[in-house]
Amino acid sequence: MKVAFIGLGNMGAPMALNLRKAGHEVTGHDVSESARTRTEADGLVVSASLEGAVANAQIVMSMLPASEHVESLYLSESGAGLLANLSPGTLVIDSSTIAAASARKVAEAALRARIPFLDAPVSGGVRGAQAGTLTFMVGGERSTFERAEPLLGLMGKNIFHAGAAGAGQATKICNNMLLGILMIGTAEALSLGVANGLDPKVLSQIMSRSSGGNWALDKYNPMPGAMDDVPSSRGYTGGFGTDLMLKDLGLAIESAVATRSATPLGSLARSLFAAHSLAGNGTLDFSSVIQLIRPPGLT
Amino acid sequence: MKVAFIGLGNMGAPMALNLRKAGHEVTGHDVSESARTRTEADGLVVSASLEGAVANAQIVMSMLPASEHVESLYLSESGAGLLANLSPGTLVIDSSTIAAASARKVAEAALRARIPFLDAPVSGGVRGAQAGTLTFMVGGERSTFERAEPLLGLMGKNIFHAGAAGAGQATKICNNMLLGILMIGTAEALSLGVANGLDPKVLSQIMSRSSGGNWALDKYNPMPGAMDDVPSSRGYTGGFGTDLMLKDLGLAIESAVATRSATPLGSLARSLFAAHSLAGNGTLDFSSVIQLIRPPGLT
Amino acid sequence: MKVAFIGLGNMGAPMALNLRKAGHEVTGHDVSESARTRTEADGLVVSASLEGAVANAQIVMSMLPASEHVESLYLSESGAGLLANLSPGTLVIDSSTIAAASARKVAEAALRARIPFLDAPVSGGVRGAQAGTLTFMVGGERSTFERAEPLLGLMGKNIFHAGAAGAGQATKICNNMLLGILMIGTAEALSLGVANGLDPKVLSQIMSRSSGGNWALDKYNPMPGAMDDVPSSRGYTGGFGTDLMLKDLGLAIESAVATRSATPLGSLARSLFAAHSLAGNGTLDFSSVIQLIRPPGLT
Amino acid sequence: MKVAFIGLGNMGAPMALNLRKAGHEVTGHDVSESARTRTEADGLVVSASLEGAVANAQIVMSMLPASEHVESLYLSESGAGLLANLSPGTLVIDSSTIAAASARKVAEAALRARIPFLDAPVSGGVRGAQAGTLTFMVGGERSTFERAEPLLGLMGKNIFHAGAAGAGQATKICNNMLLGILMIGTAEALSLGVANGLDPKVLSQIMSRSSGGNWALDKYNPMPGAMDDVPSSRGYTGGFGTDLMLKDLGLAIESAVATRSATPLGSLARSLFAAHSLAGNGTLDFSSVIQLIRPPGLT
Repeated sequence: MKVAFIGLGNMGAPMALNLRKAGHEVTGHDVSESARTRTEADGLVVSASLEGAVANAQIVMSMLPASEHVESLYLSESGAGLLANLSPGTLVIDSSTIAAASARKVAEAALRARIPFLDAPVSGGVRGAQAGTLTFMVGGERSTFERAEPLLGLMGKNIFHAGAAGAGQATKICNNMLLGILMIGTAEALSLGVANGLDPKVLSQIMSRSSGGNWALDKYNPMPGAMDDVPSSRGYTGGFGTDLMLKDLGLAIESAVATRSATPLGSLARSLFAAHSLAGNGTLDFSSVIQLIRPPGLT
Repeated sequence: MKVAFIGLGNMGAPMALNLRKAGHEVTGHDVSESARTRTEADGLVVSASLEGAVANAQIVMSMLPASEHVESLYLSESGAGLLANLSPGTLVIDSSTIAAASARKVAEAALRARIPFLDAPVSGGVRGAQAGTLTFMVGGERSTFERAEPLLGLMGKNIFHAGAAGAGQATKICNNMLLGILMIGTAEALSLGVANGLDPKVLSQIMSRSSGGNWALDKYNPMPGAMDDVPSSRGYTGGFGTDLMLKDLGLAIESAVATRSATPLGSLARSLFAAHSLAGNGTLDFSSVIQLIRPPGLT
Repeated sequence: MKVAFIGLGNMGAPMALNLRKAGHEVTGHDVSESARTRTEADGLVVSASLEGAVANAQIVMSMLPASEHVESLYLSESGAGLLANLSPGTLVIDSSTIAAASARKVAEAALRARIPFLDAPVSGGVRGAQAGTLTFMVGGERSTFERAEPLLGLMGKNIFHAGAAGAGQATKICNNMLLGILMIGTAEALSLGVANGLDPKVLSQIMSRSSGGNWALDKYNPMPGAMDDVPSSRGYTGGFGTDLMLKDLGLAIESAVATRSATPLGSLARSLFAAHSLAGNGTLDFSSVIQLIRPPGLT
Repeated sequence: MKVAFIGLGNMGAPMALNLRKAGHEVTGHDVSESARTRTEADGLVVSASLEGAVANAQIVMSMLPASEHVESLYLSESGAGLLANLSPGTLVIDSSTIAAASARKVAEAALRARIPFLDAPVSGGVRGAQAGTLTFMVGGERSTFERAEPLLGLMGKNIFHAGAAGAGQATKICNNMLLGILMIGTAEALSLGVANGLDPKVLSQIMSRSSGGNWALDKYNPMPGAMDDVPSSRGYTGGFGTDLMLKDLGLAIESAVATRSATPLGSLARSLFAAHSLAGNGTLDFSSVIQLIRPPGLT
C-alpha cells in the first residue's frame, strides 16, 4: 500500500519505519528539515513537500505535537487543508494526542469530504514505537477501524476500538489521567510505608498482590531500588517525560471543564505534575514526581 | 492446638470457626452476649469470661474494632492486661486493624513479658473470612511469623511477612490508602469517559489492559453495569463499607501527620469518603463513592 | 452620549438602565425578544436589530454569556463582525466574563480596526448591577481606561485598571478562583469548629478578627444562622449561583492549563463546585457548597 | 499577684517579662538550663525547680511545645502532676497549642481537683509576644475567663472567650487551618495572575478590595515585592515558620479524623506544607510555600 506519513519526530519516525519494514511503500514528510534528513538516513523515502508525500497515497497517517497542528494540517480556513485535497476514500489516521473536541471537528470535516477518518492515539512511548508494541486507542466507524487494523498491527500489539469519532482521544485522556493518579498514589503509599520503617520492595510486593495493585506499582515502581530496569532505577531517565504527562493531564482537565465533570484527584494530579515541572523536572520521567513528596531516606 | 479467640464479630466469628473446622480446640470470647450466643449456635465453644477463654491456651488470637480495645485487652494500667497474665511463650496474634503505633506499643509490652506477638491485620472482608481466603499482612519476628503461618493459612490464602513489629498494620494502611485512591481515581476516569460519550464497559476493558489498569477497575468496577457480581451491580450492598474505608484512611492520615509525610491524594480521598459518609452513605459499599461525582446518566 | 448596549440579561438590563438614568442616550439590543420586551417595559429604548442599536453610537457596551458570544459579536469570520462595521474611534467596552485569551483576540482585532477596546468584567452580581455598585476590573490602554472611567462609574463604585488588554479578565478569574477557595475553606473551618462543639457565630467573630479573616467569612458567611441577610440565612437563594462560580473556576483552570500553572486548591475547588452542581444544586447560591461537607447539626 | 510561668522559650519568655513589667511577681521555670539563664539575664526571677516556681503562686501559666508536655506537667500518672499539688482555687492557664482533646483531658482533671483552668492558645508569633499584642483564644468557664482577662490583657490585645473547656484550642486549629488555606490560595491566585502577565502588586490591590480579600493577601502577601515589611520581602525570614504551620495543620487534621469531618482543602494544605518542609524549607516563613508553585519570574 502507498502510505504518506506526516510527522517524523521521536514517535512518528520509528512508526513509519515499521510500516516500511513490513513492505509498505511509505513516503514521509515533516516541516523540520532535520527530521526529514534524519529519517531519510534511517532508510525512509521522504518528501520535502506535503503535496509530494500525499500524492497518490491510499493511506495518510499523522503524528503531530498538538491540536493546533492537526487542525492546521487537515482543515485550514484558506481551503488548503489536506481533507479538501485528498481523493474520497483515502484512509486517514491521526495518531497525535489531541483534544477529543479537535478530533471530532476533524472527523466531521472528513465525513463531509467522504474521507474515512480515525483518531488513533497511542501509548507505549518511544520504545514501544521502535519495537512495534504500541497500544492504539481508536475512534471512528467500525468498518473503518477494521480496514485500518492490520496496518496498525504492524506498529502496535494492542489495537482497541474505543467507539465513534473522538473516542480514541477521549479514551486516551481518561486512561492517562488515571495513570497520573496511580503514579502519585503509589508514590504516596510507598513514601508513607518508608516513613513507617517498611522496606519499599517488600511493601511493593505485598500491595501488588493485594487490593493496592496497579500498573504504576506493578510495572513502573517509582521508588529507587524497588524494581530493576525502570526509570526510577536509572535516575528517572528514559520513559515518559513529566511534561508529556502534564500535557495529557491538561487535555483531561480541559475536557472535565468542558463537560462540567468533577475530577478531584485528576485535577490535583495535574497541579502536582505542574509543580514538579516548574521546579525544573519537566524532562525527567514522570515517576520522578515521587520527589515532590520526598520520603525520608530517598536519595 | 488450644486456641483462644477474642472478638466474635462479623470477621472474628467465621475466622474462629475456620480454625475449629481444621481441628483446633478453639474457645471464643466476646464482651457482647449476643455475639457469644450466635457463635455458640454456629458450633463454637464460647466462654462468658475472658479468663475462661484463655485458660491453658497455647495461642491467643484477637479481632477487635479499634486501637483502644486492643490496648485495653492486652495492656490495661491496672495490671489486669492479658499480657501480664499469659504464660511466657504463648503465641499472641492480633488481627484487628489499628494504628501501627498501638501495635508497636503492645508488641513492646509483649516483648517485656516474653510473649511472642504478631500484628496481623487482614483484608478480604466478611466473605474472605467465611471462605478462608483472607490476606494477612504480618509484623513481628520472622521466627514467630513462621510459627504462626500454618495457623493463619487455615483462615487465609495469602500470608505476607511485612517486617518487624507494627509492619503488618503499617502495610495495611498503606495498601488501603492506595486502594481508596484507586477507587476514586477509577470513578473519575470512568465518569469523564461517560461524559465524553464513551461506553464505560469498553473503556474499562481498554484501560484494564493499558497503563490505567488497577485492582479497583479490574476486580471491583464502581460503575453500575460495567461488571457483574460486584457491589456496583447490586446497589452497592455487600462488600467493604464506606465507613470502614473511612476508618482505614483515618489511620493512614494520622500516621502521615505523625511522620510528617505528604499524602495529597490520600488525604483528599479521606475527605471525599468523609463527605460521602456524612451524606448518609456510610453503610454502602465504598465503591459507591462514584455517586459523589455523579457521571451523567448514572442512575 | 449615545450608547449601544448589547445583551439585556439579568446583569445587562439594569446596567443599561443605570446609564439611561444618568442621562445618556442608550439603545439596547438582545437576540432574545423577551429580553427586549422586558427591558423596553422598564423604560429603555431597544432595537430589534444589532445594526439599529449601534447606528451612530459613540460607545458600545456588551454583556454576554460566554467567549463564543463575544467572539461571534465582534469578530465573525464572514466579515459581519461588529468591529469591522464601527467608525474608528468608537469606544467599545465588553463586560462579559470570558477567557482572557478571547479578550486578547478581540482586543487585537480592535487595534487593527483602530477601535479603542476594553475588557471590563464585573463583580457584584445582580444586586450590584441594580444598585450601581459593581466592581469593574478593566484591561486595555490607560488612556482608553480614563475615557471610560466616568461612564463605568455610573454603574459601579470600584473601577480598577488592571493592566493591558485581557488584564481585566485575567484579574477577574484570579479573584474569583481565590473567592471559590475562600468559601470552601471557610466552610471547612466552620464545620470543623461545629464538630468540635463550637458556636459557629462566636467562631466566625473570632476568626474574622484574626488571621482567618476573609471576604467569605466576613461578608458572606456560609453557615446558616451565623450572619443575617446573606444567602445562607435564606435557604441559599439570591446571591451568586453555584453554576456561575463553576463557570468562573472553569475559566481559571483553563488558563492554568494554558500557562502550565499549578493551582492545587483552585482546581480542587472547581471539582467540589462541580460535584455540588451535579448533585442538583447549580442554581443555589455558591455558599451552599458547605452542604457538601455537611457539618453535624446543619439543617 | 504571684504568678508562676512554666516554659521560657521564644514565646514564653517575653510573655512572662510582660507580666513582670506590669508589676506582677513572676517566677519562671523551664526544664532547659539555658532558657532559665537567658530569661534571668533579661530580668526575670527564675527557679531551677518546678516546685520552687509554683510555691504560693496564685496563678500558674504554661507555654509548652506539645500535648505530651502539657499532659506530663499537669497530669502525670505517678501522682506528681501539678494539678494534684496546687491549692484549690489557683488559676491555671495553659497557652500552649495542643490537641483540643488533650486540653479537655487536663480541664477535666482540673475540675476534679477544683482548680479553675483555661486553655488559652495564642496567635501573633514572637513579635506579638514581645510587643504584648498577642491574640488569645480562650476555652473554659466564663467566670474563670473574666478572672483571667486583665492578666491576659497585659500580654495581648485581643482576648476572645471561645466557649467551654477545649474551645480555645479548637478555635485556634480552625483559624490556623483556614490561614493555611488562605495562604496557599492567595499564592495560587497571584501566581496565575503573574503567568497571565499581571503585575502582582496591582492584582493584590484589586483583589484586596474585592471578594478575594483575605488576611494573607492583605497583611502578609507571599509574593516577593508585592508588599513591604513582610517575610516575602526579606527572603522569608522571621514570621511564622513552615514547620509551625505544619504542626497546627496536623492538629487540625487529627481533629478532622477524630470527628469524621471532611476537610478537603485543609488536608491538601497540610500535605503541601509537608512537601515544602520535606524539601528543606521548614524554618522559612510559611508564606514561602508559594515557591512550591513557582510562578514564572519569581526569583
